[in-house]
This record gives sequence, C-alpha cells and structure tokens, in this order.
Amino acid sequence: MIPRYSRPEMVAIWSPQTRFRIWFEIEAHATSALADLGVVPQEAARVIWEKGNAATFDVERIEEIEATTKHDVIAFLTHLAEIVGPEARFVHQGMTSSDVLDTTLAVQLARAADILLADIDALLAAIKRRAVEHKTTITIGRSHGIHAEPTTFGIKLAEAYAEFARNRTRLVAARAEIATCAISGAIGTFANIDPRIEEYVAEKMGLMVEPVSTQVIPRDRHAMFFATLGVIASSLERVATEIRHLQRTEVLEAEEYFSPGQKGSSAMPHKRNPVLTENLTGLARLVRGMVTPALENVALWHERDISHSSVERMIGPDATVTLDFALARLTGVIDKLLVYPENMQRNLDLLGGLHNSQRVLLALTQAGYSREDAYVLVQRSAMKVWEMRGDRTGAFARKLREDPEVTLSDGEIDAMFDDAYHLKHVDTIFRRVFGES
Amino acid sequence: MIPRYSRPEMVAIWSPQTRFRIWFEIEAHATSALADLGVVPQEAARVIWEKGNAATFDVERIEEIEATTKHDVIAFLTHLAEIVGPEARFVHQGMTSSDVLDTTLAVQLARAADILLADIDALLAAIKRRAVEHKTTITIGRSHGIHAEPTTFGIKLAEAYAEFARNRTRLVAARAEIATCAISGAIGTFANIDPRIEEYVAEKMGLMVEPVSTQVIPRDRHAMFFATLGVIASSLERVATEIRHLQRTEVLEAEEYFSPGQKGSSAMPHKRNPVLTENLTGLARLVRGMVTPALENVALWHERDISHSSVERMIGPDATVTLDFALARLTGVIDKLLVYPENMQRNLDLLGGLHNSQRVLLALTQAGYSREDAYVLVQRSAMKVWEMRGDRTGAFARKLREDPEVTLSDGEIDAMFDDAYHLKHVDTIFRRVFGES
Amino acid sequence: MIPRYSRPEMVAIWSPQTRFRIWFEIEAHATSALADLGVVPQEAARVIWEKGNAATFDVERIEEIEATTKHDVIAFLTHLAEIVGPEARFVHQGMTSSDVLDTTLAVQLARAADILLADIDALLAAIKRRAVEHKTTITIGRSHGIHAEPTTFGIKLAEAYAEFARNRTRLVAARAEIATCAISGAIGTFANIDPRIEEYVAEKMGLMVEPVSTQVIPRDRHAMFFATLGVIASSLERVATEIRHLQRTEVLEAEEYFSPGQKGSSAMPHKRNPVLTENLTGLARLVRGMVTPALENVALWHERDISHSSVERMIGPDATVTLDFALARLTGVIDKLLVYPENMQRNLDLLGGLHNSQRVLLALTQAGYSREDAYVLVQRSAMKVWEMRGDRTGAFARKLREDPEVTLSDGEIDAMFDDAYHLKHVDTIFRRVFGES
Amino acid sequence: MIPRYSRPEMVAIWSPQTRFRIWFEIEAHATSALADLGVVPQEAARVIWEKGNAATFDVERIEEIEATTKHDVIAFLTHLAEIVGPEARFVHQGMTSSDVLDTTLAVQLARAADILLADIDALLAAIKRRAVEHKTTITIGRSHGIHAEPTTFGIKLAEAYAEFARNRTRLVAARAEIATCAISGAIGTFANIDPRIEEYVAEKMGLMVEPVSTQVIPRDRHAMFFATLGVIASSLERVATEIRHLQRTEVLEAEEYFSPGQKGSSAMPHKRNPVLTENLTGLARLVRGMVTPALENVALWHERDISHSSVERMIGPDATVTLDFALARLTGVIDKLLVYPENMQRNLDLLGGLHNSQRVLLALTQAGYSREDAYVLVQRSAMKVWEMRGDRTGAFARKLREDPEVTLSDGEIDAMFDDAYHLKHVDTIFRRVFGES
Repeated sequence: MIPRYSRPEMVAIWSPQTRFRIWFEIEAHATSALADLGVVPQEAARVIWEKGNAATFDVERIEEIEATTKHDVIAFLTHLAEIVGPEARFVHQGMTSSDVLDTTLAVQLARAADILLADIDALLAAIKRRAVEHKTTITIGRSHGIHAEPTTFGIKLAEAYAEFARNRTRLVAARAEIATCAISGAIGTFANIDPRIEEYVAEKMGLMVEPVSTQVIPRDRHAMFFATLGVIASSLERVATEIRHLQRTEVLEAEEYFSPGQKGSSAMPHKRNPVLTENLTGLARLVRGMVTPALENVALWHERDISHSSVERMIGPDATVTLDFALARLTGVIDKLLVYPENMQRNLDLLGGLHNSQRVLLALTQAGYSREDAYVLVQRSAMKVWEMRGDRTGAFARKLREDPEVTLSDGEIDAMFDDAYHLKHVDTIFRRVFGES
Repeated sequence: MIPRYSRPEMVAIWSPQTRFRIWFEIEAHATSALADLGVVPQEAARVIWEKGNAATFDVERIEEIEATTKHDVIAFLTHLAEIVGPEARFVHQGMTSSDVLDTTLAVQLARAADILLADIDALLAAIKRRAVEHKTTITIGRSHGIHAEPTTFGIKLAEAYAEFARNRTRLVAARAEIATCAISGAIGTFANIDPRIEEYVAEKMGLMVEPVSTQVIPRDRHAMFFATLGVIASSLERVATEIRHLQRTEVLEAEEYFSPGQKGSSAMPHKRNPVLTENLTGLARLVRGMVTPALENVALWHERDISHSSVERMIGPDATVTLDFALARLTGVIDKLLVYPENMQRNLDLLGGLHNSQRVLLALTQAGYSREDAYVLVQRSAMKVWEMRGDRTGAFARKLREDPEVTLSDGEIDAMFDDAYHLKHVDTIFRRVFGES
Repeated sequence: MIPRYSRPEMVAIWSPQTRFRIWFEIEAHATSALADLGVVPQEAARVIWEKGNAATFDVERIEEIEATTKHDVIAFLTHLAEIVGPEARFVHQGMTSSDVLDTTLAVQLARAADILLADIDALLAAIKRRAVEHKTTITIGRSHGIHAEPTTFGIKLAEAYAEFARNRTRLVAARAEIATCAISGAIGTFANIDPRIEEYVAEKMGLMVEPVSTQVIPRDRHAMFFATLGVIASSLERVATEIRHLQRTEVLEAEEYFSPGQKGSSAMPHKRNPVLTENLTGLARLVRGMVTPALENVALWHERDISHSSVERMIGPDATVTLDFALARLTGVIDKLLVYPENMQRNLDLLGGLHNSQRVLLALTQAGYSREDAYVLVQRSAMKVWEMRGDRTGAFARKLREDPEVTLSDGEIDAMFDDAYHLKHVDTIFRRVFGES
Repeated sequence: MIPRYSRPEMVAIWSPQTRFRIWFEIEAHATSALADLGVVPQEAARVIWEKGNAATFDVERIEEIEATTKHDVIAFLTHLAEIVGPEARFVHQGMTSSDVLDTTLAVQLARAADILLADIDALLAAIKRRAVEHKTTITIGRSHGIHAEPTTFGIKLAEAYAEFARNRTRLVAARAEIATCAISGAIGTFANIDPRIEEYVAEKMGLMVEPVSTQVIPRDRHAMFFATLGVIASSLERVATEIRHLQRTEVLEAEEYFSPGQKGSSAMPHKRNPVLTENLTGLARLVRGMVTPALENVALWHERDISHSSVERMIGPDATVTLDFALARLTGVIDKLLVYPENMQRNLDLLGGLHNSQRVLLALTQAGYSREDAYVLVQRSAMKVWEMRGDRTGAFARKLREDPEVTLSDGEIDAMFDDAYHLKHVDTIFRRVFGES
C-alpha cells in the first residue's frame, strides 16, 4: 500500500483508529449481550459503552503496552481498562483474541468489498456509456493481432461490460464468504461464552454467524476472497492491454487522455504514452501475486496458528487498496478515452478487403466446392493481396475476379464487400449484454 | 497428469477420442440447426450424423493431416470429410475453430466438475460418518501447536465438513461459470452464423449461451474455475496437515490405515508413515500452482490470441485429474482412519489441568480482580506447572490452592477441572453444521 | 508433459526405464564401494553388476509388487532380487530410499540441464546469425508501444542474445546446485553407511558430494533450479511477445515463417498468425507456474517428509520437457523469421520526423533555452504533427521552421533529420555483446 | 512494508530522500562526465554539484510539480532547476528517465543486498554457535514426523547452516545480477549520449556497465534477484517450521524464548506459543508471493513499457524490508532458543528402541537372510512394540529375543541398542559444514 496507488476512503478502513474502533464495538456489543444473559452487570456494559464511545484510542500507548505483552489484543484491553476503569474486567469475558481479530477483519473486508462494488458499478456505467456511444463504430476485429473480420468498438466495450458484470457477481459472492462473525472462545467450543453472544454481535456488526470456527474463522473463506480479487485484477489487465494495443503508433484507434502540461518522456517531447493502462497492467500483477499467499494461509495447524496474520496484515490492505485504485483509474481511462473512428476505418481498409475471405469461402462451398478446395482457392487470392505492398484498395475482389477457378460472378463477388453485413447482430449482442433498453 | 495420481473416469474426459467425439457433436448439432434454418440441406445434416455417429475417429490420421495444416480443427474437419463425403462441405459453415474448441472445453470442464462434485459428496459422507462416530471423543484443542482447551474429534471433523460443504457450493458456482456455449463465428459477431445456431447447440450440449464472446469464450470464466480448484486443494491440504500432525510419534491420536504387507521405509522396518496425507500436501501444491497461469490467461490480446491454449491443454487435465485423485484419496484416508481416543485422553492430561486456565481467570475476574491482575495470578501458577517435568496429574489445581492470593475456595477450584464443561455446546455445533438429524 | 510440446531426448530422461537404470547403477556402485570396504563380498558386487547390466527391468512387475508394499524403492529392490538372486541381500546395505531417489533426481536434472544448455547454445547461435544479418537494418524503437527513436533490428536481437547469455550462466549455476549425491543413510547420519560410499558413488555418477543431507537432499537446491527455469521461461516470453508485436497487421516488420499448406484459420483463409510465439507465451506461463510449488517444497518437516515427491514427479518432467520444447521452438522461429526492412522504414517514417524531437530539445538547451522552455517549444510543434492525419513527410521540420521562437536556422533544423545519427554506436553495442569479431 | 515488520536501516534505502539523493548523484556525475567530454561547461557541472549537495530535496514540492507533468523524473528535474538555476539546463543532457530510475534501483537493490548479506552472516554466526553447543546433544531424527533414527541437535543446526551458506552464495550472485548501470539514452542507442558517460557514472556509483540496455535495464536481472529472495524466504520457513514442531506440547524439545511480562493468549494464561516462528512462516509466504510478479515483469513490450514500475515500487521495498526483518528475527530466535536435551532423550526413548530396527535388519542380512525375509522378521517384532501403550523401555530387544526365527544371540541383540553408534560421524559432518576448526 503506497500513497501513489491509494485512495483515502479505502485506506481509512485499514487505519489503526478504525481497527481499534471496531475492536471496541465488538467487545462492547459482546459485553452488552453478556449483560442481557446476566453474566456481567448491565451497569458495567453501560459504562463501557459510554466511556469507550467518548474515547480516542491512543495508538502509541497501545504499542507501548504491546512492547511488554507482545500481544496486541491484550495491549488494547489494557489500554481500554485505563479508559473504562474497574468495569473493564467484564470486557472480553470468555472471548479469545481471534474472536475480536477475525470478526474485525470480516468487517474490514466487507467494507472494502462494498467500496470495490461501488468501484465496479462506476466502471460499468462508464463502459456502458462509451459502448452505447460507439455501438456502430466499425473497427477491425483482430485474432492473434492480425486483422480478422469487422466488429464495432461498442461490441468491444460490451465484452468488457459483460466481464465486469461477472466480476461484480463474483465479488458479491466473495463478500458473503468473508462477512461472518465468530465469537466462539478458545478453540471455538463456546465453553466459556454462550453462542447467543455470537448471534448478538453478528447482527450488530452486520455479519452472518460462522457455523463452526476453530478459534479462528476458517481461511478458505479469505482464500476465496483474495482469489476473486485476483480474477478481477486479471480482467483489469485485459482491458488495459486492449487500450495499450489500440494506442500504438501504427494503430492509434484510441488513446488515453493527455492533459495540458503533461509530459510523456523526459527526453523525447513528442511522446504520448499509454502510461495509465501500463500502470494498471503492473497493478494487476501485484494483486494477482497476493492470491497464492492467501491460498497458503488455508492450511493452518490444528485449531489455528498465527502464520496467516502477517500475510493478512499486508495483503488485506494492499490487495483492496490497490484494486480500488486500479478500478477507479480504469474508470477514468474509459471515461476520457479518445476514440478515433477515422483511424479505425483506415486500418480496416488496410488489407484490401481480405476481412471478407470467409464470406467468399462460404459462397464457394454453397456453390458446390468442397470446404478444402474452396479454402485453397480463397487462400490463393488472399496471399497475393497479403504480399502486396502499398495501397490495396479493392485488391481482394480483383484477385478473385481474375481467378478463373472462382466460379462466382463479378456481381456476386462485389456483393461480398459490404461491411454492414458484419454488423447485423450488434443489436442482438447489446440486448444480451445490456438488456432491453 | 501422471498415471500414479490419476483415475480412469476423469482421464477419459481428456482423451483424444472424447475430444473428437464432442467436436463432432458440436459440428453436427450446428449443421442440424443450419438445416432447420434452410442454410444447408436437411439431407446433408442427416448424412453427417449418420456417418459420424458410426465412425471411430482416427487420431493418427488427424495428426498426420495436422502436420501439414498446422491447425488441429482443420485437420479434424478434413478427416471428417473423408468419413462423411461431399456433404462434409456443409459442416462448420460460418463457424470458427474456437466455436468448437471452447464449447468442447466447456463440456469437458463441466463433466470434470460433475465428477469433482461427486468426489466432494463422497468425502462429505465419509467425514460426516466419522464425525458422528467421534462426536464426543474428547481431545485437546491446540492453538500454535500448543495445548489450549479441550474439544472433540467430532468437532474437528465437523469443521472439515463445513469447509468442504463451502467448497461444494463454490464448485457449483465455478461449474456454472464455465458451462457456456459460444457459436458466434469469427470475432464473435455472428456475421456468418445466426445466433439461433448457438442457442440450439447450447441446449443440446447442456450449456448456457455465452452472452458475448470475442470468438473465444472469455477467460475470466476459466480463471475463476481454476482459482476455485486452488481453494479446494488448499482445504485438502489443511485436513491432510491435521492428520499428519495427529500421527506424529509423540502425539499419535490418529493414524492412516497401514495395510498388511505395506512397508514404511526401505531401511527402517519399524516405520508407519502418513504418506498418503503427505502426498495430498504435495498434490495441493500442484493444483495451486495452476491458478496463476489460469489468471495470466485472462488478458488475451484483442478479440483473442492462442496463448491460453497450451496452458489449458496442460492444466485442464492436470488440475482436474489431480484434484479428483486427491479428493478420492482423502476420502479413503478419512474412511479408514485409525483413531486412538485413549491417546487423546493421555495427551489431554499431559499438562496437569492447565487447559482450564481460562476458567480460573474468569472466576477471578467475577470475584472482583481486574483482568490484568487475575491474568498475572493465573499465569504465575500455570508457569510453575509448565516447567514441571514428569507426571503433572492435578498439578495446576494444587498450585492454585497453594497461592494465597487466589481467593477461590478449594471446592471452587476443583469444580473447574471437569472436562465435560468444555463439551456442552457440541450439540449446537453439530446442529449448525449437519442440521437437525 | 504432453506429446504435442515434447521432444524425445528430454522425455527419455524421465522414462521408467531410465529411472530404474539409474537406480540400479547407484545401488550397484554403492555395493562395489561396500565390497571395497569389506562390508559385503566382492563376489556379490560382481554378480549384481553382471546380472543387473544384462537385465531389462520389468516396469509392470515392479508396479505389481508396489501395489502390495506401497513403496516404490522396495518394489524395485524386490524385483532386483528376482533378477540377481541371493546376492541381492547385499544391495542397499545401510542405505535408505532417499539415497537412491534423490541421487537419481540429481542425475536426471543434471542431464536435463545439459540438454537445456545445448538448447540455449543453439538459440544463441540463431540469434547471433540474424543479429549480424540485421546489424544496421534501421527500425523504430518503441517505448510504451509508441514510436521513440530509431534503433536497428540487429540491436534488438543483440538484447535477446545478451539476455540468453545471462540465462546460460544462470543455468550453469542451477545445474551445479542440483548435481549432488547423497548416500548418507537414514536421517543422514551415516550410522549404517560409511561416508566413503557416498564419495565413491558421487564420483561414478558425475556428481558432487552433498555436504550434509537430512536423509534427503535439501530442497532449496531444487527450488533454485526451478526458479531459474522460471526466469528463462520469462525471457522466452519477452522475445515471443516482441515477435507477436512485430507481426501485427499494422506493423508487419517481421513474421513467423508460414509453410506451404499451412492454414491460419478454419474460417478465414486470409489469416497468417504468429501462433508459434503465442504458443511460447503460454508455455512460459506453464513453466513459471511451477516455481511456486518448488518453493513450497523447501520447508519439509524435520529431517524429511514426502510431500515434495508428488510435486517433483510432475514438475521435474513437465518443466524440463516444456522448456526444452520451447527453446527449440524459439530457435526455429528466429532461424526462419521473415524480416521486412521496407516495412520498418515505412513505419519509421510514419510520424514525419518526430523521432528526432530529443535532438531538437538538446540543440535548444545548448542554444541557451532552459530545459523546461525548450521542452514546451518542441512539444508544441510535435503535437501539431502528432495530430495530423495522412502523409506527414517532413512535417516536424516544417513545423519547427514555422515557429518563430525556435531559434535554430533552417540548416540546423534539417541537419537534425539524418537517421544515420542514431546508429553511430551500433558497433559499440555489438562489441559489448558479441565481443570483438 | 509495514512498520511492524520493518527495520529502519532497510527502510531508509527506500525513502524519497534517499531516492532523490541517488537521482541527483547520477545526474551530477553524468554532467561531470559530459563536462569532461566538452559537451557541457565545466563550470555548470561544478555549480550543479555545489548547489545540489547543499540542498535538501523538497518531496512535497516535487509531488506538486508531478501533479501537472504526470512524470516524476521531470518533476524532480524541474525542482532541481529551482535549486541550481540556469546551469540546470545542462543536467540530463541526452539522458532518459530510465537511465536515472533504473540505475537508482540498481543502487538501492545493491545496498539492500548488502544488508541482507550482513543479516545472513549474523544468522550463520548464531546458528554455528548453537550448533557447536549442541554438537552431541542426541535427539531423535524424524522422517514423516515419525521417529526414525537418532541424530544430534547440532547436526540439525548444521543443516540449517549449510542451507544459509548456500543462500549467501546465491545472494552474492543475485546482487551481481542487479548491480548494473545504464546511461544509454532513449532506446539505449547512445545516440545522444556517449557510452563513456555510462562508464564514468557506473564506476562512481559502484556498478558494472549494462552491456546493452533497451532504454531500461532488462528485467530478467530483477526477476532473478527476487526469485533468489523467494528461495531464501523458503529456507527461513523451513527452519521456522522445525522450531514450531519442536515446541509442540507433546514434543517440547526446544522453545522460543518467552520474556517476562509476555502473554501468550488473551484468554488462556497458561499459553507459551511459537509466535515468532509462525510469524516467519507468514513472512516467507509474502516474500515468495513477490516472485511471480517479478517474473511477469520480464516481458516488457518492445524496448520498454512502464508496467514493471508499479510492481517494483511495491515489491522492491516490501521484499527486501520483509526479508531483512525476517532474517533478523530468525537470528534472534536461534540465539535465544531454549533447548531441552532431557526432553529430547525422553522422546528418543519413547518407542522402546525401535529406532535401531535398521541395525537389526542389516545384521540379519549379514547373517544370511534375504533382505525381504529379514524385513518381515524385524517388522513383525517392531509392530508389536508399536502397538504397545505405556512404558516401552527395552521392549524391542525383548520382542526380538522372543522371536525364535531371529537368529541373533541375546548379546548380539543387546549390542545393537547403543545410541552412541549413531553419532560416530558427527565429526565428519561438522568438518564438511564448518570446515576444520
């Protein structure tokens, strides 16, 4: 988590103040529930809430205590006792540190997921707006980086939309995975804490009850969560890569917005580089790199060990902060993306009509040729065009007409070079992706 | 995918014969649909089905053709033409190789997921059976590998059950992710193939329609699928690690079944080693290692490149075959696991009652001590017991009674060394995990 | 390891026959050394060599025995006893299975490394040949995919050469890492086997002695080995990515060889795709994916567990076979790469001379402008050219001449558009990379 | 990089002040060299050094400028111009940002490697001290977590020593990989900067010259560096895992130092947990997780893109800071490790002498039994002892004596239960690992 790639709202979730505040709330809610069950005095619960709510927790003081106890939750509880006074002895009754820590992490990750969901919503809105704008902006489709057949820039964006809509669904599922509350005491047996405390705290903190915890919330939940972030990051990379390709000098079908005063290179004043999407590519690598540590965290020893903790202290903030930043950055890129339809048309025309080779192939098979023979015939003319240099306008149709074995009339051939043909199902695709408008 | 860690049913999904059979079905269904739309003659569709159904595809012949074409689908189509005759020219009309390849992969992964789901069901059944058997078999719970408080062996298994029940849910979602059909032609625009063909083939092959494909089915779907397998593998590792720990010579609370004639070591005839669960640990690493390549596959260039293909040719079979084998192996391990309740009791007694330290702490806070002071008091006696060597029977209660600052009566102290206390919520946990019986 | 991406020489290293042959040699050498020390009869050693050398080990028979013993080395020894007769009891004296297995793996990995080193040598030779051929073939250098300043195609290849020369050095080091022999008996204490046996076998098998083994050869060695393969794979991906970029329709500065009869697409007969380098990109992902499992193998429990074994059974063959295939494939691609200098020149001219913007910047700073002011001035003209469409021949010089604040004479400006200027240090670079010729 | 797992010396390497200071030195050295070549006035170089040396770079001001230029090096140069005055226009002549950035990263990583090397030296010293101390402290060796044969605690530490000595060698090589200087200008052609500048700066900054750079230093170097850190982290995990195992309640052969006032659990005052080594296990996962992003950074596009930058901004500090902290933490753990030889002896005696099963096996084969028959015989007695509960003192010898088929005299049998037998080669091993003392 470095300032350059961070946004304040997500960063705030991971601040010590936020963490201690959540710790306090969990402890205080648990004490309230214990009071309701008669385990601790109602008055104690009241005092704890009152004094704790009024306090700002002193991070340095807590760290000072931890230097001796070497245990962060005990340090916090000791500090809380300094604030609350004698009633503090009723705090944390029957609970273990993991009850606090894991439920807190659940709250933090759920809040982080909410921000990420809002990020995706904003991204989806931006993509949709540009997709509709360029619904029929014709452009060459490329497989293997090589011209294939035409599509529209709107369809390209519709694909991104569908992918991020899937990512949204995945993230909703991942959020549900980690939004559970465990207040089950040492080893998770509820020996010293009634399961009703857990139910109470869960409801207050907006979480589900963890059905069975082993003192800790099982880490397969977190593994699934971070794996999902890794998939979303990979989708980000896909869109970023597309834009980087489109901005290449020779292609230049789209370009990241270049602001007044911006400089592309310290040495070469002519440069305008796709630095935002290249940055997104790197950020995707980072988020993806956190998936495996999260997977390795699953196999804790016996009821729990603490090896997951250092991993989560780092990837918890890093993965969510980085992904939040990246999603917002991509939204900005899409929103302000410069699109050049005239360059798209120029590139489309580059191969002299070769993008219609399949139509000719199909026409020849319909006319009685075997698939194999038709292929040879079409490929023969196509390769001649391929190897031409310079202006290829109309070249493919010409070569086909010149080939005596191509048993199609000139009119039939010419009819196959109408690009609107390729766009006839744009509506179908848009309807599938965006629904009826 | 190596024979040692493979089971035939899963292996069969990935055989060339299966693959070519699915290819044929997709092509033939598409041709039927084309015939229904009047694009190709109904008779052609009939002949294709008839001759194709009767044929065994000749893998060597297809490879021979591919040596020239350097294109596997074209090689297959050429071979199919040898089988079908002139009507073969109506096959693959308006389709592109990816329509066949990606839809086939969807079928294969969906079938693989079905086997894995059955594997998980068998595992869940085995775990549940042993959990019920050992519902109240008391055993020490361990955090950090150190004795904490008692639990039951049944609860340990209930945790595994809950985890694999979650994995089942995840796998159902992952299966849905990849079970889509794309018959959208070059660049996915349907320019040369009607969307109704896709709907027809999807239904026939038991798949959903891919809303928008870019010639290929988008790889975020597969990334999510393999990431899910990685999570499941990590859960396998968790259970395997637990058993490895329990089988240690000093612990020996459970042991993998050791069959007559089995040998543990070539050098040391006395050895009985947890080799199956160690093996599962390694297999988990393998499956987990396939997650990142799957994530890297997402960012294909433009409408598609073919870089994902070699990755999937390897991890498609390897991840599913390995996980299938591992799940079945774990089921066998759980099923035949030797459990030693007497050793569990012996280990539980090792620390002279220290596992009740929290109860004493709570009693002291209820008696008016601050949490901090009570902690110091209990820790003082506990450390004396900790540092004893040899038999510690009753030692902790004794030390507490000897401490004048511990303001609890002997009776109060003794009452805190009743282990049944720790098991009072076993029913709650079982009800949560297994439901009402 | 799948046939499609395998070459026979590397595959042979990993065949059961090869493995059993190495097992035999290690056992037989150890017996010879034991005979020299008088621990076993010389005659026994002689008979073992004689009968073992004459035998072909029966893989099926060994598997049959293993089905009972569940131990592969014991199964082999039992089969060897069937071949050798009573003298077989002197085989494996004081040894443990790991002595055989780990030393065998060392032999296999060392042989695999030798093949990979030869692969790299062949690749280096191909790169060098093409680099010399295109030493002064001018082409635009690109940063961020955007035209920057000219370089030569030979320099691009020199970079690849330098990178693979580094990879060669790394692989030599990695080979040394894993080429060690351990014959140290159970737990590695030499309690039942004299260290001189280890020295003898090491020398015979062409390995170094492992200074201290824990029954197994420590897995940090293998981790380093596979990590090195991951780096090499990543270099492969870099070169492959470069070629994929150069083959794009709009760029077409180089192209993979397209053989007669080859077909690029089943649907579109005009396609010629960079499928080999795309394939290399995927293979790189696979090899890279094996690094983490190898790293996870390091932390075996105590003196050893067997969790590494299943990992190595898969990644040992898979990583080496895949990398061998990939290196050979890249060598073929480089060797037959079609290079289009005229397209390079056409692309170079695309931006009307903007690639000389730095020269103008420097001239202005030399003429007294501050860096910041000069930058603004050059960027101003450059952006005008940038936004032109169509033919930009001579545009940048023209814009500069038109700008009254550019205090350079027309002659000074024109002199800055001589592309040979950029190539003046090609010799320096070639000397650094290839040495004096 | 979070404070909890950071040490100040390593953190300082990555501070903005350090970075800007190195940037300045590179720019100033380059200007000096340019002055020596007569490209810029000597007086300018002098002024730049004088004013730059006196300055503290204003991080906030630089960030303010970057907000407009969106380019960090240009922002720094603009700020430098504010400090230096008009002579600043002679700074950065012919250089590109990557010359500064990549050479700076080389300096930072080299310095980081120096700290890590010192860390490893300290760790090696600690391990050696404890190894010598426990050279003959007998303890049971374990394979698969199961008692095998005796070894010494000193040998265990010797293995760790040998492993970290290898890691030291690897890190020296990795440091050499990344300690190169590139001042080669745009696209690395030296078109606007003489190669002698690079040589000069390299020498001044303590780096080697990069033979050929593509504007950037090739990222295979960094990949190798981070992969090496990943291997070292994995070794850390191995040692940490060993200690975690030894500290288990049932084993307790060693224990992390537990300081006065320390608390092991908020709920259970009796706990003393191996939290430092569990923490190291997690930190190892983190460092390992950074290997793959570093590998993915290799395949930059063409001469360079900037996707590596965000990755390195994070993993550069994170991997080095985390590993530095972890190495120091492990050194502390080893240094203060509590070792319990009496518990080692107690555990060793647990299986009633079974750890000598191999000796009996070998004696029987020497006495004429086939390996297979001898194995069955020894295993038969061993399994009886295995299945005993309670005190097994002398049990294995007893069972062997009772077995009429065991054709060894009672004296021969008893002679095989002398544990000193297992330690006869401790000297050999120590000599191999630590050299002659």
